[in-house]
Amino acid sequence: MRVYNFSAGPAAIPLEVLEQAQAELCDWQGSGMSVLEVSHRGKDFVACSAHAEELLRSLLGVPDNYRVLFLQGGATGQFAAVPMNLTAPGETIALLNTGQWSGKALKAAQAQGLQVQVAADEAASNYTTVPSPGSFTIDPAARYLHYTPNETIGGVEFGYIPDPGTAPLVADFSSSILSAPLEVSRFGLIYAGAQKNMGPAGLTLVLVRDDLLDQARPETPDVFNYTKMAASDSMLNTPPTFGIYLLGLTLEWIQRQDGLEAIAARNQAKADALYGAIDTSDLYHNPVALDARSRMNVVFTLSDPELTGAFVSEATAAGLTGLKGHRSVGGIRASIYNAMELAGVEALVEFMAAFEAEHC
Amino acid sequence: MRVYNFSAGPAAIPLEVLEQAQAELCDWQGSGMSVLEVSHRGKDFVACSAHAEELLRSLLGVPDNYRVLFLQGGATGQFAAVPMNLTAPGETIALLNTGQWSGKALKAAQAQGLQVQVAADEAASNYTTVPSPGSFTIDPAARYLHYTPNETIGGVEFGYIPDPGTAPLVADFSSSILSAPLEVSRFGLIYAGAQKNMGPAGLTLVLVRDDLLDQARPETPDVFNYTKMAASDSMLNTPPTFGIYLLGLTLEWIQRQDGLEAIAARNQAKADALYGAIDTSDLYHNPVALDARSRMNVVFTLSDPELTGAFVSEATAAGLTGLKGHRSVGGIRASIYNAMELAGVEALVEFMAAFEAEHC
Repeated sequence: MRVYNFSAGPAAIPLEVLEQAQAELCDWQGSGMSVLEVSHRGKDFVACSAHAEELLRSLLGVPDNYRVLFLQGGATGQFAAVPMNLTAPGETIALLNTGQWSGKALKAAQAQGLQVQVAADEAASNYTTVPSPGSFTIDPAARYLHYTPNETIGGVEFGYIPDPGTAPLVADFSSSILSAPLEVSRFGLIYAGAQKNMGPAGLTLVLVRDDLLDQARPETPDVFNYTKMAASDSMLNTPPTFGIYLLGLTLEWIQRQDGLEAIAARNQAKADALYGAIDTSDLYHNPVALDARSRMNVVFTLSDPELTGAFVSEATAAGLTGLKGHRSVGGIRASIYNAMELAGVEALVEFMAAFEAEHC
Repeated sequence: MRVYNFSAGPAAIPLEVLEQAQAELCDWQGSGMSVLEVSHRGKDFVACSAHAEELLRSLLGVPDNYRVLFLQGGATGQFAAVPMNLTAPGETIALLNTGQWSGKALKAAQAQGLQVQVAADEAASNYTTVPSPGSFTIDPAARYLHYTPNETIGGVEFGYIPDPGTAPLVADFSSSILSAPLEVSRFGLIYAGAQKNMGPAGLTLVLVRDDLLDQARPETPDVFNYTKMAASDSMLNTPPTFGIYLLGLTLEWIQRQDGLEAIAARNQAKADALYGAIDTSDLYHNPVALDARSRMNVVFTLSDPELTGAFVSEATAAGLTGLKGHRSVGGIRASIYNAMELAGVEALVEFMAAFEAEHC
């Protein structure tokens, strides 16, 4: 029996995707081989990778002057790779600090010898807010503005795309990519780990505008060098083939859900149902400002914190897993990415009401 | 129907491993989730990763003063990571140049600002040899000696462990790790991509001796920083969970084959059968010196090169796939890693004889 998995990442994958992967795991496309076993340079896998790229371009509307790269190392790898590819040591970048993932990107940029202008810092609200549009000014010397559209730990999400002034906009979309339509042309560079909305851990997506290529530092590892990776169709070295294959299956699944508009509507309905349950309860509390609530990661605390452990264990027993909050903040976190069905959120809402009735 | 897959990597995986992964792909250990979906920090996956490490330590006899790291980015990533972790710019390393992969490691070390003493270069034989023991001297200033125990493209393998003098020995074991017992204590650092003898592409194994930690350059990306990765049990960021899981299944399979001594004997028998067929034929020719023939990648040319295309297509039709030589050198390459059964090699030998009889 499948459970409802609210893990923050690795996270739930659509059952249809898993079942297709399972059916063909020992014999892919009648090849007599698993997709795990075929050469990345063989025509079958090259077609599989090209298919994933085409679907992604089509679903997200990626303009022709952007390159799609399939890399490794996750967003944490990109925290170093972005500065290495786009700056020289001693230069300045701007950053919006909205929580733990922004903070990690900040430290990694400093480790690459950059001056970081923190154009907005939400420390005063304990990172439960995002800066208002127009409330920050970007240093004209900044080589780019970096921000985190969705903070997976804090459960905070931008409801708008920040204006980077004349600098390119760089965004870590790990936890909200493909959750709604996206105006890619507003960005210079987008990166995202796959393990929330795209497939398994170990695949990293980078979308980079052509004019940002050709300026990597000489010491940039080849596997992180956007220019070299773009020139080799992400096959400078052996790519994470199974991840690319599962990405393709996931994108086909998104297509079958009628695309990103439909996905966005469903995600909004799920988030509304869950925040609604929290806001009408006396036991549960979400600390995030109304205009900054994440559609992907819904965090809440219990007015009696001693009940948190019982909540997690009773939920698990009821087939609702992965609800324990991040170890750094505690509480509860329900990650409701694309693959979480509305029925799963409804089951959680029902459980929350029953738990409150039982314990309060 | 499964074929015999002679691809160089990604490569054949034991059918038992694939079948187990297939059986539990939608419900791992009764969790109601795929192993692809579970949190890397949950107790089940932490146990899965620890189990893979324990099996690896046990099978290879990894001493306690070595750390086992599960990274991403393949050997190509390590070409940059090793210099970043073990040297400062301007320092010297030594390297044995025995073919294309050594050459790539050399260029990547230079890109990190290192002086590279090429202590031996097999250019004179067109990289069909390895240097004899004692025929090279390591610069006393070298921070380490790097070599490639098995050259996947050239089909050349060291039959011995080179003496690095007082420097630590660093080896790219991507294409021969776990193919035979290994005296790990002779090495300072071993790295290997998983996609030949350990599982899927996207997982990279590093074994590093404790005394080589704590000296990474400040700009080393965290995901390549051995010290930080060792301190976090390879979970500084989200690891490639499915790859680690498949590594564990593959190590259990090696255990069921009675361990690395038995694996080594079987690999030797496979190589002997294939080289025997080549050496007793008028059509096939292997260019590699007898003491440097790879047990993993058997390369050969046809005395009439025009027959190469027919050989590959007729072999494919006969269920023997992945035999086309590397695009840079042409000819034929049969990669016969652990997962290739003796029956597969026998089928290839039989096909080679029939092809020769038909065409010559």
